Amino acid sequence: MRDRFLFIRSDLAQLAAYVPNPGGEVTTALDCLDANESPFDLPSQLKEKLAWHYQQEISTNRYPDGSHQVLKELIAQYVNESAEINPGVTKDHISVGNGSDELIRSLLIATCLGNEGLILVANPTFSMYAILAKTLGISIVSVERLETDFSIDLDAAQKALNSAQNPPIRVVFVVHPNSPTGNVLTSAELNWLRSLPKDILVVIDEAYFEFSKTSVVSELQQHPNWVILRTFSKAFRLATHRVGYAIAHPELIITLEKVRLPYNLPAFSQAAATIALQHRDLILPSVADIIQERDQLWQALAEIQQIQVWRSRANFLYLKLPDRNLEQIVQQLKSQGTVIRHTGGGLRITIGTPAENLRTLKRLKAVSV
Amino acid sequence: MRDRFLFIRSDLAQLAAYVPNPGGEVTTALDCLDANESPFDLPSQLKEKLAWHYQQEISTNRYPDGSHQVLKELIAQYVNESAEINPGVTKDHISVGNGSDELIRSLLIATCLGNEGLILVANPTFSMYAILAKTLGISIVSVERLETDFSIDLDAAQKALNSAQNPPIRVVFVVHPNSPTGNVLTSAELNWLRSLPKDILVVIDEAYFEFSKTSVVSELQQHPNWVILRTFSKAFRLATHRVGYAIAHPELIITLEKVRLPYNLPAFSQAAATIALQHRDLILPSVADIIQERDQLWQALAEIQQIQVWRSRANFLYLKLPDRNLEQIVQQLKSQGTVIRHTGGGLRITIGTPAENLRTLKRLKAVSV
Repeated sequence: MRDRFLFIRSDLAQLAAYVPNPGGEVTTALDCLDANESPFDLPSQLKEKLAWHYQQEISTNRYPDGSHQVLKELIAQYVNESAEINPGVTKDHISVGNGSDELIRSLLIATCLGNEGLILVANPTFSMYAILAKTLGISIVSVERLETDFSIDLDAAQKALNSAQNPPIRVVFVVHPNSPTGNVLTSAELNWLRSLPKDILVVIDEAYFEFSKTSVVSELQQHPNWVILRTFSKAFRLATHRVGYAIAHPELIITLEKVRLPYNLPAFSQAAATIALQHRDLILPSVADIIQERDQLWQALAEIQQIQVWRSRANFLYLKLPDRNLEQIVQQLKSQGTVIRHTGGGLRITIGTPAENLRTLKRLKAVSV
Repeated sequence: MRDRFLFIRSDLAQLAAYVPNPGGEVTTALDCLDANESPFDLPSQLKEKLAWHYQQEISTNRYPDGSHQVLKELIAQYVNESAEINPGVTKDHISVGNGSDELIRSLLIATCLGNEGLILVANPTFSMYAILAKTLGISIVSVERLETDFSIDLDAAQKALNSAQNPPIRVVFVVHPNSPTGNVLTSAELNWLRSLPKDILVVIDEAYFEFSKTSVVSELQQHPNWVILRTFSKAFRLATHRVGYAIAHPELIITLEKVRLPYNLPAFSQAAATIALQHRDLILPSVADIIQERDQLWQALAEIQQIQVWRSRANFLYLKLPDRNLEQIVQQLKSQGTVIRHTGGGLRITIGTPAENLRTLKRLKAVSV
């Protein structure tokens, strides 16, 4: 068969397709706690507003605004509000993508393509960096995290940087807080990132910023080789609309804009993010509830002897059950109606509604003792 | 400045960003005839249906279905209806993208990345092939088209294929009918494409298929190295939603699915394409009107001595005004309220509403004599 498709890059043939989990096959009866989504739909008044906007303001036959001006300005305001930075960022510091995924891909394309560089990741971490790198033929250098607090093994990371020379490591990816483990960057990790030479791009993914309430955005000005990624898919409850953004030095933003697809965002997705930002007082208060639920669930799980559970600064918990077959546990939970993620050697469970979290606790107790 | 961004690929620094034309700055008072959009919004009953669907059926907090199963099945049905092929294509022959742009990028990534191959285009043609190739560091071999009918200079194309060896030409891009010139592939061109060796991928972009009513889809089975691109952005009036699709051999489709972003299409865009297909009896009849308008406008323009205008099988016309400064004409028309595209050494004018076309004619007359 292969010989009929000689035009396909040979390294792609070995690569398995990423199967989004759960894809289209999950029934609504399940507690979907495997994708770190918010458990809450947009308030109906905002959906109504958007539905009206679609009917009245969007001409479906026209290409969407490829400049994203309005949305970028609102994002810049939101970023400035969320940090105390002076001078604040402007729309020239912002690029908007079809989810953060597109921005990750654009960053990889802009830097490492054609054997110009490798990327460094510390596992376990968000899988998309490595997946997208592989589709682009970019090699990945992996180091470990310490089991105690899941901070990066910095000695190993520095060693990897020193030894990869042809090509060199061009990009370091970190998540703040990390997925699937929920920990924020430590002072030691931050100091190491600050020490990196300016020919290395540092990508700091703050997808869970609204939950962690900690950001490196105030340091961007001193570190033009840093780029921060954020998303509307988590706390803003807009996963369905696919909107992510990057905050970086205007010259890096220009490069991202060159690389992205010209009409990467449907007009309706731009409208959804715009209206969500304008009405964030109706959306973001749920963050406090989710944090409270998370800490309650943590407390209850920590009391179960068979479970090892870590503190989290995001909207999920990470846990292990030593000597147990985790895949089996995932299947047992699924058969009871709770879908979670088995990843990086542990279980990642998204914080859901109070009722979902109660069921999670009950079901986990049942399978763990 | 550059030395602060050493991690950016040096070949990207020279590349200018694609500025979508007209972007967000055009007022609604203008006749926007520069992007080959349909002049008609979706019927209001379908927009209402979609608005209802958004409010009732879509949970904004959930990631969209990344498998596109429902939409792919409907597309396969539509493709089969539009051609008389036996056996017809199935959903396994379909991949859906964030506009055809994403599919073009995926095809380039799957084939030519890392100096594995070059692409061949025949100018003037759709600019996105070369633009996306450049962002990926892929080199472009260009040949000319004959001025008489804008068919490809096949001798030059064959010579280019023979002489490019390291790397070889991996992909040939053609548009059927071509943009900006409106001509369909000739028998000679088709025969040449049929003769290409199976290690060359042939991309046949049928973005304007609903207008040309001619397709190569019935030949796909004999030519597993062919891929057809289509879009919902033209006759289906869904440019704002960004949905394109590829029809190809299942093995090539698997590769495209590997390469694309896992959640590349918002749920609402999938719903829009689905509902548009289900109700195409309400949408596609406008195609006949546009064709009639096109042929009338052609007739009227052909009578103007200073204008050279070509027959078209798409929803636009291509014309030249010998010895005239075309950029000046574009600006004059724009100042009067008609926006058209100056490309490939000529002017490309989208067919609009009857009122728009009358104004186009009047204004073109005024500036051409």
